[in-house]
Amino acid sequence: MTDLAQALFAPRAVALVGASGDPKKNTARPQRFLARHGYAGAVLPVNPTRAEVLGAKAYRSVAEAPPPVDHAFIMIPEVERALEDCGRAGVAVATVFSDGFADVGAEGAARQARLAARARELGVRLLGPNSMGVIDIPGRLTLTVNAVLEMDSLPAGGASIVSQSGTMLGTVLSRGAARGLGFAKLVSVGNEADLGVGELVELLADDADTHVILLFLETVRDAERLAAAARRAHAAGKPVVAYKLGRSALGERLARSHTGALAGSDAALDAYFRDCGILRVDMLETLIEIAPLVAGRAPPRLEPGRAPRVAVVTTTGGGAASVVDRLGLSGIETVAPGSDAPIVDLTMAGTSAQYAATLAALIGSPECDAVLAVVGSSAMFHPQHAVEPILGAPRSAKPLGAFLTPHAEQSLALLARGGVAAFRTPEACADAFRAYFEWKVPRGESIAPTIDIKIQNQKYDEKRALELFASLGIETAASQVARAPDFGHALPYPVAAKILSAEIAHKTEAGGVILGIGGEVEFREKVKQLNSNEVLVQVMQSGHGEAIVGYRDDPLVGPLALVGAGGVTAEVYRDVALALAPVSVEEAEDMISRVKGLAVLRGYRGLPRGDLRALARAVAALSRLALVPGRPVAEAEINPVIVKREGAVAVDGLVLLKG
Amino acid sequence: MTDLAQALFAPRAVALVGASGDPKKNTARPQRFLARHGYAGAVLPVNPTRAEVLGAKAYRSVAEAPPPVDHAFIMIPEVERALEDCGRAGVAVATVFSDGFADVGAEGAARQARLAARARELGVRLLGPNSMGVIDIPGRLTLTVNAVLEMDSLPAGGASIVSQSGTMLGTVLSRGAARGLGFAKLVSVGNEADLGVGELVELLADDADTHVILLFLETVRDAERLAAAARRAHAAGKPVVAYKLGRSALGERLARSHTGALAGSDAALDAYFRDCGILRVDMLETLIEIAPLVAGRAPPRLEPGRAPRVAVVTTTGGGAASVVDRLGLSGIETVAPGSDAPIVDLTMAGTSAQYAATLAALIGSPECDAVLAVVGSSAMFHPQHAVEPILGAPRSAKPLGAFLTPHAEQSLALLARGGVAAFRTPEACADAFRAYFEWKVPRGESIAPTIDIKIQNQKYDEKRALELFASLGIETAASQVARAPDFGHALPYPVAAKILSAEIAHKTEAGGVILGIGGEVEFREKVKQLNSNEVLVQVMQSGHGEAIVGYRDDPLVGPLALVGAGGVTAEVYRDVALALAPVSVEEAEDMISRVKGLAVLRGYRGLPRGDLRALARAVAALSRLALVPGRPVAEAEINPVIVKREGAVAVDGLVLLKG
Repeated sequence: MTDLAQALFAPRAVALVGASGDPKKNTARPQRFLARHGYAGAVLPVNPTRAEVLGAKAYRSVAEAPPPVDHAFIMIPEVERALEDCGRAGVAVATVFSDGFADVGAEGAARQARLAARARELGVRLLGPNSMGVIDIPGRLTLTVNAVLEMDSLPAGGASIVSQSGTMLGTVLSRGAARGLGFAKLVSVGNEADLGVGELVELLADDADTHVILLFLETVRDAERLAAAARRAHAAGKPVVAYKLGRSALGERLARSHTGALAGSDAALDAYFRDCGILRVDMLETLIEIAPLVAGRAPPRLEPGRAPRVAVVTTTGGGAASVVDRLGLSGIETVAPGSDAPIVDLTMAGTSAQYAATLAALIGSPECDAVLAVVGSSAMFHPQHAVEPILGAPRSAKPLGAFLTPHAEQSLALLARGGVAAFRTPEACADAFRAYFEWKVPRGESIAPTIDIKIQNQKYDEKRALELFASLGIETAASQVARAPDFGHALPYPVAAKILSAEIAHKTEAGGVILGIGGEVEFREKVKQLNSNEVLVQVMQSGHGEAIVGYRDDPLVGPLALVGAGGVTAEVYRDVALALAPVSVEEAEDMISRVKGLAVLRGYRGLPRGDLRALARAVAALSRLALVPGRPVAEAEINPVIVKREGAVAVDGLVLLKG
Repeated sequence: MTDLAQALFAPRAVALVGASGDPKKNTARPQRFLARHGYAGAVLPVNPTRAEVLGAKAYRSVAEAPPPVDHAFIMIPEVERALEDCGRAGVAVATVFSDGFADVGAEGAARQARLAARARELGVRLLGPNSMGVIDIPGRLTLTVNAVLEMDSLPAGGASIVSQSGTMLGTVLSRGAARGLGFAKLVSVGNEADLGVGELVELLADDADTHVILLFLETVRDAERLAAAARRAHAAGKPVVAYKLGRSALGERLARSHTGALAGSDAALDAYFRDCGILRVDMLETLIEIAPLVAGRAPPRLEPGRAPRVAVVTTTGGGAASVVDRLGLSGIETVAPGSDAPIVDLTMAGTSAQYAATLAALIGSPECDAVLAVVGSSAMFHPQHAVEPILGAPRSAKPLGAFLTPHAEQSLALLARGGVAAFRTPEACADAFRAYFEWKVPRGESIAPTIDIKIQNQKYDEKRALELFASLGIETAASQVARAPDFGHALPYPVAAKILSAEIAHKTEAGGVILGIGGEVEFREKVKQLNSNEVLVQVMQSGHGEAIVGYRDDPLVGPLALVGAGGVTAEVYRDVALALAPVSVEEAEDMISRVKGLAVLRGYRGLPRGDLRALARAVAALSRLALVPGRPVAEAEINPVIVKREGAVAVDGLVLLKG
């Protein structure tokens, strides 16, 4: 265990700064909880107005408490003063419950930055501010004000959670405890002034008690470190699962480019989680319930293009259907190996022995990738009927999950103790299987060399944008700038004519584009409508379909590649695929396969196939902007790329630099 | 109470046909359960091999039991014999638990039809076969084999459920009981050989103990009767809520027409529920939890086009966000009246008094349509902090719901007893608010007169289909049939030429369509490519966009109108709106507003607006096929309708007759 981990989770002594002597107060809770749950180290209340707090000797400051104090829990408004004391006393970690920092706006953020800087100078690591604390169940440390810790006992288990919401510590603890699901460590990171989610995942990747790492996130503040930590957890065989808020707060208002709007922060994080090998769950309880399903398992390896298959055995048709239905919505098939039926329904016929035999056969069958056992009303009072056979089922690399239709906490607890993933709702059950099947091995750290592309430090008009794309190896439509008064050019008709301006991002909407000009006479006439002395003339392209290809240096997760269907489709249906940039051509092909609207180019309904390999090459090429030293490009977009029978040609381009 | 309702729910005596003397057997359960839960009528075991069953005198047959026997529960394989006895004994209702009927295929279905016919002759109403039974909690009738009835007590409440899955009786009862949510009547309808969901909803609409009617459905077998019953329930002020399985079993394989594929049975039922004023919930627990949210309330009346607004007060930011996030995904806004914040967060600041005052202010505010109270960890052990203020909140027509983040069954029960809708998961909470806001007043029974349109009893080629549409008042593109060898026609160029055949539904995919023929020479040359002696020549149409308009006489729910975006969009994204046909122009406009892909015609991103009123007129006109006597048309489809700045023109048509 590192010194940091020891001080954070297993301190020899903790100081409770601002501990109240009134047991009803929130600030009295940590001391009560530590006593109740059996913390073996020294508990040192710090309260300058009292000689004794709840029966323990109190100290005027941390500096006056008997050393060594590994960990201080600060609950007073004067956090800065307490931090100085911690520095003097050689405290390794200060967890700051007090709020009034980045959580209250710009002034608070400045205060927080000063606090963090001072902590670095003092050599004190900070958790928080605005942290609800730290819990280590096997170590009996309950350094928190969370009211749920009034519980009589805290079941231990192999899942640990890092949460950006303090309340969630109580939520997962209490919900887990009610049905026998225990935890190892629970950490509320608060504002992450110093210790962030990434560093905590690193600690948990190395923690012997932790087998699955759960994350409750509102955002990601340290994407690179978390990505590295996720790789480390993967190497240690510990799945990382995230529940993240903010899916609907996508900033739906349209930004200057489509790429910016489509790669909204949640979509960006979704791509980030996938590429980091972090499972993402959609429902809150899935985060609690999924741990046994993935513990000790690796991401599934399915043949590309094949739907995942779950074998289902049940004592209730309706109960099984409630899960099967939702699995189907995620593109997961259910099977009854050796038969045409979608499930094995033992509703009336089944004895315990039949249930057990069926389950064993399903787990051993090569025709399915996972097994789901559903139990109806018997789960409440007759666990011997079908719940115990589940417990007795052979263990294998193939995931086994159970859904119980009645209220059946004892059966849930039985299964939890037996290490079987048991779900309270059909929705969380299906969500967990979906997350499992979408789980990927983390992509390796990029080791691609930087590329030598000259990025001009000025606004890019379309002409320059297309030149940049061409320099990346992207095929672009032949174009020339034509100038007043005669607008001469040497391109073959038909052509398009466009206003050439770095100021107008959406030229079509602004009436700045004329397509399909058939000949010289028409050209001379129509070009005047653009009211511009300079126009870009471009050879008209036709193909089997259109796509949008984008690149964005996301403020949260860094460079992203984007591909979507062309036209307004990508936007109206938010039908795009994202991945961390740069991507290889193969990775780009995988992205393309996730875009529904590109079905028209995959031979849908007998339509002619487009050259999706060429589209993938364009996606990969544009994504190499991530390798330009200093990453000066904020966003780049080709909208549309015309996908032909052979080749894919960029006909419009946008490049936005940072700053 | 009708005689039927009395015999079904409040029989003076029940006969248990096949009651076992072995208390461990399923068939012994009804007798044990009736005794345990205090049924006051006579319980008459029928078992020819015993003089006495579990301490009660047994009879050789129902006919030998002392009259009056209002209700028999049949658990033996020889259902037919038992039914004859019931007929002889004047039994009003026979509930058949035995299976082996329509549940086991065609032969069983025939057996079931014979059983139902015989029951009609005998004057015995049937529930089932394959029914798990009937429960009336206020009346203490527990005529069921469901294992969950081992429960010590059954809480009574104002919600009743009709279920096509027997297991679900135990699921809702046990889950409700665990947190204080009670029920009135619970009915498992089994195969619905006689008594169906519709008739049961009628009975519940008239039932004094029932205030909300819940449905667990796998299909709908009596759409017209259920629609009428839903109107009756609405008139009685009783909301009807459905959870329906089979969302993913859409029959995704493409049918001959798009309309058939797009109006898959689940999409059809979705339209049906909406038009019947039935709320549809997406998650199983929502069905249990939603009752207090809608009881005594009417469908919301929002100004058209305005997003619903929920005011939120919380003691936990993360907990509130987990609901707010999902509300946002359904297009529901959250507000903190009088401020710019999306929620009122009392995490650190709030006292009970503040929480109560905030809640009262939100309930009284005209700025919101509903109120959500979120409570964090305090809900587990300190209900006085925020749970009791919720109980004390003023009651109004505005819905109030609560979400508690920890495991807090006692607080949930407190709220249930107080009649406040309390949710265990953020997802079910958001689902309930969504269902509430999508809830509509049931559409009245159609009183439109039949229309006099001649439907030819032969296959329709495109020419005839377009003529039929024109006769309904739909604008169609001018077209003529041109014949070999010279293919002469009098239409102005540009034109399209198409193979004229009633056998080829998807002509484009079959290479049977040539578009944009510019003149005579080109026409003569290209028309040969069609390899047909007869071609349909049509004036080319151009407009601002395309739509698909359809009509389908659905086998489950009857005539449906359909509108979607044109091209492959409708199909790839399943982006269509359905409603029970016929629809008015105004109803068609509402349908159009639900189609995302038609955004391009609503002035999206400055694109020119299309004449959506004209499109609505076409939708309404086609839907009038529902009024043709005998309804000979199975499906009709216009794909595409070209939507212009003024007007909307049908350019391709398909009509399929029944049989």
